[in-house]
Amino acid sequence: MGEAVGEGRDGRRRLRLKVAVWSTAEEAADRAGDPSLPSQCAVVIDVLRATSTIVAALAAGAAGVVPVLTPEEARALARTMPGGRVLLGGERKAVRIPGFDLGNSPREYRPEVVGGKTIILTTTNGTRAVHAASAAARVLMGAILNASAVARAVIREGRDLIIICAGTRGSFSLEDALAAGVILEALPRAAEAEGYDLEADCDDLSLAARAIAAHYRGRLDEALRSTHHGLDLESLGFAADLDYCAQLDAIPVVPVWAEGIIRLKLGEGGP
Amino acid sequence: MGEAVGEGRDGRRRLRLKVAVWSTAEEAADRAGDPSLPSQCAVVIDVLRATSTIVAALAAGAAGVVPVLTPEEARALARTMPGGRVLLGGERKAVRIPGFDLGNSPREYRPEVVGGKTIILTTTNGTRAVHAASAAARVLMGAILNASAVARAVIREGRDLIIICAGTRGSFSLEDALAAGVILEALPRAAEAEGYDLEADCDDLSLAARAIAAHYRGRLDEALRSTHHGLDLESLGFAADLDYCAQLDAIPVVPVWAEGIIRLKLGEGGP
Repeated sequence: MGEAVGEGRDGRRRLRLKVAVWSTAEEAADRAGDPSLPSQCAVVIDVLRATSTIVAALAAGAAGVVPVLTPEEARALARTMPGGRVLLGGERKAVRIPGFDLGNSPREYRPEVVGGKTIILTTTNGTRAVHAASAAARVLMGAILNASAVARAVIREGRDLIIICAGTRGSFSLEDALAAGVILEALPRAAEAEGYDLEADCDDLSLAARAIAAHYRGRLDEALRSTHHGLDLESLGFAADLDYCAQLDAIPVVPVWAEGIIRLKLGEGGP
Repeated sequence: MGEAVGEGRDGRRRLRLKVAVWSTAEEAADRAGDPSLPSQCAVVIDVLRATSTIVAALAAGAAGVVPVLTPEEARALARTMPGGRVLLGGERKAVRIPGFDLGNSPREYRPEVVGGKTIILTTTNGTRAVHAASAAARVLMGAILNASAVARAVIREGRDLIIICAGTRGSFSLEDALAAGVILEALPRAAEAEGYDLEADCDDLSLAARAIAAHYRGRLDEALRSTHHGLDLESLGFAADLDYCAQLDAIPVVPVWAEGIIRLKLGEGGP
C-alpha cells in the first residue's frame, strides 16, 4: 500500500503511491478478488453519467445513493423503505426506466426534487463498477465535476490507488479514461496542498490517461462530444448533459461508498 | 467494410473507414472469431519489440519471418527446413531463448546475419497477436519505424481497419497504443497522397490512441522509456532498443502476413 516515507524537498514528507487504471466494469468484476484491493483506495468513474449524477444528487442534498444492479432489485428495495423518503433513479439504453422517478441525467437531481431523499440508482455500467470496487479499503466516486476534490481525498487516504472506469458495455470509454487522467493530473497539486512530495508509480493505462487529459486540457466538453457514448446521448437529446458533466471541479464534493450506500464524506469535500 | 463513395473536396474521392483498436493479444484472441474481421485490414503492433524486430529483419533482407507460439514449435519447424537457411529468434522474459540464434532485439537482425534467411520467431505477446489477427482479409505489421508506410498501405487496402495491440501479458501497453495513434495520425496524409478525402469513424480507443500520439509528438523516445515494458527492457540492458524502436518512419517497409509467413509486400513499402 501507499506509504509516507522519509523527507522530500523542503522538508516535506514523501508519499509513494502505486496507481493503476482498470478500463471497464467487466474487467473490474473479473479482478474484484484481487488480493491488493482490500488495502487500496478505489475511485469509480462513470462520467456519462452515473458518477456525475451521484455527485450532483449528493451536492443537491440527497441523503444517500444506493447503487443496485437491476431495476427489479431497485423496486424491491424501495418497497422495504419508508414511503416519501425514497426515489427510484436510473436508465437502460440511456433512457429513464419505466415507472422510475428519475433518469440518469445529473440535471434532474435538483435540490427541490432530491433534498433529503434516498436515491436507489441502477445504471448500465456505473452501478456495476461500484459493486466491483466494494472490496477496496475506501471507495470514492470520481467525475470531472469533482476531480480535484477526489484527488485531495486520495492523498488524505494515503493508500495505493486503483481507478475503476465503468466503460461502456465492456468496452473502453474515452470519457472515463479522460476523467481518470484529470484526477491523476490533480494528484501532485493535492499532495502539495497536504504537505507531501508525491512519487506516483503509474501503470501504463494511468500514463495513457494522463496523456489523454493533457491532450484535451481546456477542451473537456469537446472531448465528451467526440466519444461514442457522447454521440449516443446527443442523438437522444441529452447534449446538455455533456456540457454539464464536462465542468471541471464545478462540484467539489467526494461521494463515499460504504455498506451499500453512497454519502458525502463531510469535511473532505472541500477543494 | 470501407467504401469509396462520392466526391470529396477538390473532386477527390471520399473514403469512409471504420477504425477500431484492440488493446491486448488476449482481447484479440477472444475476438478472433469476430464476424467483421474477414472483411477488415488488421495492423498488428508490438512496438517492444516483436513488430519492430520483424520490420528490421525484413528490411535487412530476411526472406521471411514465421511467427510461432512456442519455442518447441519453433524448434520442430526448423527441423523440417533446409539447414543453413533458417534462424531461430525470440525471447522469453525479454531474453534470448536458450539455443536460439537470435533474441528479440531489432538491432541483432543485421543484413550480414539475416540476409536471405527465414526467421522462425516466437515472442511472449507479439506472435500471439499475429495469430489472433489471422482471419482478417489483410494482416500488416505496424511499428513506429514504419508508421507512415503502414498508413499508406491501409489506405490502398480501402478496408475498415482494426489495430491489434499486443499489450504485455494481458494488460494495456502504452507503447502499442502510442504506435497505433502515430499510424492513425498518418492516415489523413496517406489518404491525401492517394487522392482521397478520408472520413474515419474511430472507436473510443482509437480516439484515445490519437490523443496519446499527439501528446507525445516529438518525444516518442521519452514515451517508450516511461512505459513499464520500457523500464523492464532498460533494466535488462536493452536501453538502445528503446531509442531504435522510437525512430519514426525510419524503415518505410510494410510486412504482410499470409499463409503463415510474414514477407515484405514489394511496391507498397515506399512512404
